[in-house]
Amino acid sequence: MNWPLLINIALSTAGFLATFIIIPNFYQVFIDAGMFGRDLNKTSKAKVPEALGVICGAVFLMVMFLFIPVPFLEIFLADKWEKFPHHEFVEFICALLSICCMIFLGFADDALNLKWRHKLLLPSMASLPLLMVYLVNFGNTVIIVPKPLRFLLGIEIDLFILYYLYMGMLAVFCTNAINILAGINGLEAGQSLVIALSIVTFNSVELSRGMWRNNQFLSLYIMMPFIGVCAALLYYNWYPSRVFVGDTFCYFAGMTFAVVGILGHFSKTMLLFFIPQIFNFIYSIPQLFHFVPCPRHRLPKYDPKTNKLGMSYSRFKPSELKPLGSLALYLFKLFGLVQINYNVGEDGEYMECNNLTLINLIIKILGPTHEQTLTVYLLIIQVLGSCLAFFIRYKLASMFYDVVH
Amino acid sequence: MNWPLLINIALSTAGFLATFIIIPNFYQVFIDAGMFGRDLNKTSKAKVPEALGVICGAVFLMVMFLFIPVPFLEIFLADKWEKFPHHEFVEFICALLSICCMIFLGFADDALNLKWRHKLLLPSMASLPLLMVYLVNFGNTVIIVPKPLRFLLGIEIDLFILYYLYMGMLAVFCTNAINILAGINGLEAGQSLVIALSIVTFNSVELSRGMWRNNQFLSLYIMMPFIGVCAALLYYNWYPSRVFVGDTFCYFAGMTFAVVGILGHFSKTMLLFFIPQIFNFIYSIPQLFHFVPCPRHRLPKYDPKTNKLGMSYSRFKPSELKPLGSLALYLFKLFGLVQINYNVGEDGEYMECNNLTLINLIIKILGPTHEQTLTVYLLIIQVLGSCLAFFIRYKLASMFYDVVH
Repeated sequence: MNWPLLINIALSTAGFLATFIIIPNFYQVFIDAGMFGRDLNKTSKAKVPEALGVICGAVFLMVMFLFIPVPFLEIFLADKWEKFPHHEFVEFICALLSICCMIFLGFADDALNLKWRHKLLLPSMASLPLLMVYLVNFGNTVIIVPKPLRFLLGIEIDLFILYYLYMGMLAVFCTNAINILAGINGLEAGQSLVIALSIVTFNSVELSRGMWRNNQFLSLYIMMPFIGVCAALLYYNWYPSRVFVGDTFCYFAGMTFAVVGILGHFSKTMLLFFIPQIFNFIYSIPQLFHFVPCPRHRLPKYDPKTNKLGMSYSRFKPSELKPLGSLALYLFKLFGLVQINYNVGEDGEYMECNNLTLINLIIKILGPTHEQTLTVYLLIIQVLGSCLAFFIRYKLASMFYDVVH
Repeated sequence: MNWPLLINIALSTAGFLATFIIIPNFYQVFIDAGMFGRDLNKTSKAKVPEALGVICGAVFLMVMFLFIPVPFLEIFLADKWEKFPHHEFVEFICALLSICCMIFLGFADDALNLKWRHKLLLPSMASLPLLMVYLVNFGNTVIIVPKPLRFLLGIEIDLFILYYLYMGMLAVFCTNAINILAGINGLEAGQSLVIALSIVTFNSVELSRGMWRNNQFLSLYIMMPFIGVCAALLYYNWYPSRVFVGDTFCYFAGMTFAVVGILGHFSKTMLLFFIPQIFNFIYSIPQLFHFVPCPRHRLPKYDPKTNKLGMSYSRFKPSELKPLGSLALYLFKLFGLVQINYNVGEDGEYMECNNLTLINLIIKILGPTHEQTLTVYLLIIQVLGSCLAFFIRYKLASMFYDVVH
């Protein structure tokens, strides 16, 4: 057994307990500071503290700061300073710098309600230290071409700057992907926990196969404390939520995944764990890019009579629909992925389609559903997505790549 | 000329301009988010956006992220990867991690109004990465004993863990020292600017003497962007303030100074630039530790009739005064540093002393003063303090140390 990992697990447990104890103590602090929301899917309109992800983030950073020296203790104790692996140390610090920066920006977003363009700019900036350390430590921008394409591109292709663009976009995607599959109790923290556990499983499998030792450990060292603080947050965020996680948490979680994916050299596998988020993103594109009118909130609609959630709709005049929007709705309709109602409103001059989120799609399939049940279904989908990811990674990949088994 | 420094100065100028342009655009964002205060020293009770230091911090981080690769460009371009100075690179990243962490915590303090114990805990945590890189890169905890004490302690003494404690406390001191010499328009940003310019002057003098090249450059690379964002903030924070800087800025500035002092190996000289802050801290101790009752605010008292600031008092029953408080007031009185009034209040059962801040002390000496004049006097004191610091460093130090001239 690797003893830095044992210490990491002990510190992660301490992080779980610290988060578990601190969160309820801060309810009033957040409410007094005006950082609260109302749960739109409840009859009670009590104040629910918002952006509690910031406590997760702060505890996570503290745990990591205390852990930093541990993997290097052996070198300290043996006084082998000349052998100190600066390149490994700097990976850690860059990882934490990107994550810390993202927690800060996420919290600034929660406190100040920033605009969409900031939400794209900020993760790009926060990922710069990460790209820098990648450049310094690996500098490898060569990718292996999948077998079916090799007749066209050859075995390897060097993407140069495009590879850094890919990594930067990965950070932007991860931070926002969790943020847009959100809005019902327990979903943000729940999906993050499933993804984190999937990554840990993947690292363990790889380690048991003797692959890429250091990078898999780096990933584990970062994921364990994340799981600790995330589990404590999920406890309070589970239905009925006593706290909301805020953009802070979504950004924090997304950047943490991007960091381990990039520094652990498994960004493609990591993306496979985002299958539900990728589907949700693609499904949302017509609204995100305003081809189809997008209301401010796309949450499902709460029915106080049945205490269940139904689909929410975007209502608009047919003339407001852009050509690309019509095309998207036509395609979605073809596969039964959207509910469109025509001639609605008092004069029948409006049309409406359900808001294009995975949550609404599930309600379309299952009918009105209780909020907690809905979260459970979504988390099951997340788990199934991870199973599919492992199947692709370990079974299908050999069709496209020469994978070592 | 050193061209990375030229690029740094260009980026710092861009940082100044960016901060200068962004701040007024965010007035309404901060007010809408409830982050505003009222200026107690004005007749107008308009909402003044608070915690604008967060914009300085964010711009500073962006400038630094863009600058990180620059000092290493020569190595990149020459493709001498094996010579890459990981230890210098990691110093940069650790410095930014500590600063980023402190900006985040400062902003959390502004948004959530944290307690005093957090204000001590958080900078301690944020300085951990810094101590870690010091341990790894230098590990030198030996200090030279001043000449008059050598008969007792020898020439050198190894402080071991105490040296790390000293560095951690330095970070805590710097972050809080600026925060308690505050409260009138332009003072926080103004004193930070004077300290930063003093550090730059010191670095330039040392470089011109051919000393410690890399560490002096590291300090310059960090100080220049700081001066850029700080100057832009001071413009808006100058009397009459259109924005308040918030704890965010005080923490950000303090940690930045601590970082360059520690990594630049001139922490003692750096502390000399804090002479007014150190005096203010010592003078404040009786109230900070509650030997003398301390009201919530210790700002001077605004007189709307004369538009001038007078001393503010702490009023209490003589029985509330702790023995140490009596002793401190007795000593201060002896040197004419405090104004004490007895038998005040309706029944004459109270006594009062001026709040123990440098600002009140100056008003005691000069009489009621206009707010802007007061800031100017305090900044002049800061400049005189830096002159004294240079005198001590370059003239007196040779009496205590064998300094290379």
